Amino acid sequence: MPELRHDPVQKRWVIISTERGKRPSDFAVETSAPSGGKCPFCYGNEGMTPPEILAFRNNGSAPNTPDWKVRVVSNKFPALRIEGELDRSGLGHYDRMNGIGAHEVVIETPDHQKDISDLTLEDLSSVFHAYKERLIDLQKDPRFRYILIFRNHGVVAGASLEHPHSQLIATPITPRTVAIELQSSKEHYSAKERCLFCDLMEQEIQSHTRTVVIDDYFITYCPYASRFPFEMVLYPRKHSHDFAALNDEEMFRLARHLKEVLQRMRKCLNNPPYNFLIHTAPSYQYKPRRVGYWMTIELDFHWHIEILPRLTKTAGFEWGTGFYINPTPPEEAAKFMRELSL
Amino acid sequence: MPELRHDPVQKRWVIISTERGKRPSDFAVETSAPSGGKCPFCYGNEGMTPPEILAFRNNGSAPNTPDWKVRVVSNKFPALRIEGELDRSGLGHYDRMNGIGAHEVVIETPDHQKDISDLTLEDLSSVFHAYKERLIDLQKDPRFRYILIFRNHGVVAGASLEHPHSQLIATPITPRTVAIELQSSKEHYSAKERCLFCDLMEQEIQSHTRTVVIDDYFITYCPYASRFPFEMVLYPRKHSHDFAALNDEEMFRLARHLKEVLQRMRKCLNNPPYNFLIHTAPSYQYKPRRVGYWMTIELDFHWHIEILPRLTKTAGFEWGTGFYINPTPPEEAAKFMRELSL
Repeated sequence: MPELRHDPVQKRWVIISTERGKRPSDFAVETSAPSGGKCPFCYGNEGMTPPEILAFRNNGSAPNTPDWKVRVVSNKFPALRIEGELDRSGLGHYDRMNGIGAHEVVIETPDHQKDISDLTLEDLSSVFHAYKERLIDLQKDPRFRYILIFRNHGVVAGASLEHPHSQLIATPITPRTVAIELQSSKEHYSAKERCLFCDLMEQEIQSHTRTVVIDDYFITYCPYASRFPFEMVLYPRKHSHDFAALNDEEMFRLARHLKEVLQRMRKCLNNPPYNFLIHTAPSYQYKPRRVGYWMTIELDFHWHIEILPRLTKTAGFEWGTGFYINPTPPEEAAKFMRELSL
Repeated sequence: MPELRHDPVQKRWVIISTERGKRPSDFAVETSAPSGGKCPFCYGNEGMTPPEILAFRNNGSAPNTPDWKVRVVSNKFPALRIEGELDRSGLGHYDRMNGIGAHEVVIETPDHQKDISDLTLEDLSSVFHAYKERLIDLQKDPRFRYILIFRNHGVVAGASLEHPHSQLIATPITPRTVAIELQSSKEHYSAKERCLFCDLMEQEIQSHTRTVVIDDYFITYCPYASRFPFEMVLYPRKHSHDFAALNDEEMFRLARHLKEVLQRMRKCLNNPPYNFLIHTAPSYQYKPRRVGYWMTIELDFHWHIEILPRLTKTAGFEWGTGFYINPTPPEEAAKFMRELSL
């Protein structure tokens, strides 16, 4: 059973994978690319993954056989385990709980070679449908406070398998990064009765210096205080706190928008390694503990997608301060990507 | 002039190097190792660096000539600039100030090939003397709130030059990571009238499951909630908030202790890329704004060195949550390093 441990100095939880127990020699070799052999995410290899949790299939084909379009399975090497209780306990000055959570993989297409930005709009919409269904299902589990959907592309960005996929991790605590966003947006709403994200979006639309792609439904721009070169953030233009509230039309529009953003990034930066992640509202709205707080989340939070090309390295300064040094002003980054002809 | 920009969502400052302005093609090539050519940190190439700020020299040799033991110069490509005023201003919902600060390089030895852990105790002590002198000098500048000393070893850890060196960056704000530590230690002291770090150290000494090296003056152990495999933290056993308060004897003992720690890490993990960084008290104790707060910093903060081997990658989950997944329990990591014969 993995363990969640709390750092009393940094007030941060860490997942310790006690079972993997990687030894010094396990870190010696840097695999530069997934080696040959059978890909567990390709057609015909469904037996190499845990049984599917959800799949969109053609012609009513049987579960765990080929002929699917999108497939969701448990991660074979999960960071957190689905079975059990949290068993919170103290250990002197430290705090711990069992590593309970969910860790799923969304296999986005049967086509091993296809980049996500080359999927058809219908196929990309199906990926978002899978995200939405899994979010709604996992939000019912009262042990989970937050569900993060994310995607790693390229070895440098942490992708261990080449086949296009995203991941979903449900955690029993609200992660620090999310907690800070919730606090900022709550403070802003309390002071102004306006959504912080809507306000930022409005300023970005007016200045138009950092915009990358904009349409009637979504906007993507390089944040004013970007940590990384060519970092982007995508917002729905209509205020909404919950990714899972997207309807079919909106998911189709999101597919069109994100496809263009990812194509621009890919062409501009020559297929860079990147991460993207969805920040949606936490799921314990289903079990509100402090009613006054959670009553306002629909008003003050605004879901968004962060897109982080991994072109620079984090070094001692970043680890020691939480500060980032970005060598490319977001205004220049946005101009490069916006003016590119696709 | 670089710019400090504030992210209103993550409440985080970022340094935007407007002058460098790296274009997409600048990121294309991943240099795997510093290429040939003259090393600016070697004997005889003193003219390739900015003029020296401090040097420990043999026989009273002239500044900016060979025959030095440790040499401190301004960074040729500084993240922050020393000249000017902060000029804080607002820009709609955003905040900015000029990128004022100091960015210095401590060249630790004239020997290009030498690992820091192979320096003699006298030479390593001289490096700490240089840290101390620069800290004391920069702490006098009222524009600077924090001074971080750090070291990047290996390309993966962000070292752009191979020649052994550390860096020092003075920032005009207290970085978030440090602010959280200050807050935790202040809360602990307020509640218990004991230092948080002393309490943790005591528990670690008693359990002895995560200790790597311990002597009368210092202790190094793998933190209970380590983010990274083989992560370590070094504390002075006698309570002290300020690295610059070390006396000559203590610096010699620190050299002996850190040398052993780095040698163990190097042998155990086959010369891994790593960062180390010193967290000492912030420097604006010299210009206290909230007297009640800063009066207690000598009691509640405890300087320390974090040592972070870079064996794993940070991916979408880490960026999206601030959570880390550590595949090696610190108890196992400490045992490997402690039981190694040097």
